[in-house]
Amino acid sequence: MRTIWWSDDGAVEVIDQTRLPHEVVAARWETVEDAAVGISVMQVRGAPLIGVAAAHGVALAMADDPSLDGLEVAVERLVATRPTAVNLRWALRRMADELRPLDSMDRPGAAVALAQQLADEDVATCEAIGIAGLPLLAALAERRDGAPVRVMTHCNAGWLATVDWGTALAPVYRAVDAGLPIEVWVSETRPRNQGASLTAWELGAHGVAHTLVVDSACGHLLATGQVDVVFVGADRIAANGDTANKVGTYLKALAAAANGVPFHVLAPTSTIDRACPDGAAIPIEERDRREVTHLTGRDDAGDGVGVLLAPAGTPALNPAFDVTPAELVTSLVTEHGIVGATQDGLAALPT
Amino acid sequence: MRTIWWSDDGAVEVIDQTRLPHEVVAARWETVEDAAVGISVMQVRGAPLIGVAAAHGVALAMADDPSLDGLEVAVERLVATRPTAVNLRWALRRMADELRPLDSMDRPGAAVALAQQLADEDVATCEAIGIAGLPLLAALAERRDGAPVRVMTHCNAGWLATVDWGTALAPVYRAVDAGLPIEVWVSETRPRNQGASLTAWELGAHGVAHTLVVDSACGHLLATGQVDVVFVGADRIAANGDTANKVGTYLKALAAAANGVPFHVLAPTSTIDRACPDGAAIPIEERDRREVTHLTGRDDAGDGVGVLLAPAGTPALNPAFDVTPAELVTSLVTEHGIVGATQDGLAALPT
Repeated sequence: MRTIWWSDDGAVEVIDQTRLPHEVVAARWETVEDAAVGISVMQVRGAPLIGVAAAHGVALAMADDPSLDGLEVAVERLVATRPTAVNLRWALRRMADELRPLDSMDRPGAAVALAQQLADEDVATCEAIGIAGLPLLAALAERRDGAPVRVMTHCNAGWLATVDWGTALAPVYRAVDAGLPIEVWVSETRPRNQGASLTAWELGAHGVAHTLVVDSACGHLLATGQVDVVFVGADRIAANGDTANKVGTYLKALAAAANGVPFHVLAPTSTIDRACPDGAAIPIEERDRREVTHLTGRDDAGDGVGVLLAPAGTPALNPAFDVTPAELVTSLVTEHGIVGATQDGLAALPT
Repeated sequence: MRTIWWSDDGAVEVIDQTRLPHEVVAARWETVEDAAVGISVMQVRGAPLIGVAAAHGVALAMADDPSLDGLEVAVERLVATRPTAVNLRWALRRMADELRPLDSMDRPGAAVALAQQLADEDVATCEAIGIAGLPLLAALAERRDGAPVRVMTHCNAGWLATVDWGTALAPVYRAVDAGLPIEVWVSETRPRNQGASLTAWELGAHGVAHTLVVDSACGHLLATGQVDVVFVGADRIAANGDTANKVGTYLKALAAAANGVPFHVLAPTSTIDRACPDGAAIPIEERDRREVTHLTGRDDAGDGVGVLLAPAGTPALNPAFDVTPAELVTSLVTEHGIVGATQDGLAALPT
């Protein structure tokens, strides 16, 4: 199963991730506006997937208005949905660059084909990240001498964050499939709980041993020798290796470094923003404060319920990402192999 | 208003903190078992308050069975309720040491008087912590030149964690009352959300400006220059200055140190465990995994609702505390003044 696909009647369908883990249902996008709203409200999320989803949004726009103006309006609408993840910009630039030179009448078909190509490329890229990262886990398994390798991750950088395979979890799935003993620490990832709702769900479905903890528990686990390696995804990697990822990643990187635990960022090269000199230049999305003051779960009757966690009217701030300085990143694992999170390491990767 | 008091008919009443912030109601303890359960389920929490609450539990036990055996059984029951906070042991030892030599018939009255004395001492101690810590905020206010001093805290170390005043928040209340401009970053403190439910509530009730964030956002705030100082409480301080406090404190200490922000621990000297050489020797309480997989809030109708956050049956681990190494602690603020979090600093404090 993929996270995004074309329906028989020309609509885009995605696994609606706002309904997981309690329901596996598809959301249907018929227009570019449906796609933009779906990305904004996080029916799909994960840097690689929102790039592919935005490409599908352009294809929906072209079916409606294939003019050059229609193309520019669609790109502008989609690029505004999420400011931090650079894959969104990368995918939209690819779509625009290829569609702009075409005749209007050729754009709808080309847009569908190109969106599909981006989806297929994402699957191949993530599979390659899994292959590149597998030796890291194999080496740890050797050192652990039969005991499980304990991988900590944050948020969801599994197959739900991509079209298939995932980024940070791609080597985990390969390792488990190859028979290596792996256990995953899943941090719940407030405020939207993508760890608890998405990562726990996809690991469970694949039969991967895992344990859920609150985000704050990760320092304790790292300090007490209960973690062998940290694997996280990325939303944007600056030219110097500074990495923006889901808020809370930086704290894990600090605790990993303080306790000598390797901390790897796993991401496609489309996540690298060579125009961005360092982490300070990465825009950090601030989302609705309601994500902090409220939370949605499932009550005893199995119904989805939103609950208020703080005194009514409590002021809140909701930065969705943070920046991990390059010096805290042990290595960057890409579809082209493993490099250092440095200017030179990134420069060695194909653009 | 205090957090614990005697009712006219000889029962103990406490503000039931499991019902905050949505309801301010008292829980009533008539027996030592009521007190033990109340401490276990966190009707009261906060290291200083659970010490005082346990003393009241002993007094309830003495009203029922003032024999030496009755005393030992009560102490044993109460000491088992929470393993990490050392104030519990400290208060129970004081009660036992004073009550043991007495005749049985004198124990009930003496126990009530001594429990009351511990409560009164806690108020005076916390007031002194506030006085000792105020100059730290005054100096920052001077440097901020009229702009608010931005204090980050974790969990609840306000008056709800004590009998009155609080520990980490005691200087904040004194500073606000003295007209200094202060703003507090309140981290929600998963899994039980004492930041969102208790700290936000008590700061709001006192008119102190505050903003709620998820625990994971604290690294971003510290790295981007939005925090002037971190003030936290403590559950146990080892002889070398290593400090156990609510899980997540260690991550804030790492981020504060990495960004040159002072990190102060504010606690009564009863929190110091001189018999405990270092943090590795502090037992870390593991609580019910349901605190991680479930969460209680208030639905739109205003009713309390528990919701499930993860796939049903997800394995979870719930360490309630972590240890912050002494070298990350800028200073320890006590009722006897400010000392370094070092063997020598602690040795300078009266025992």
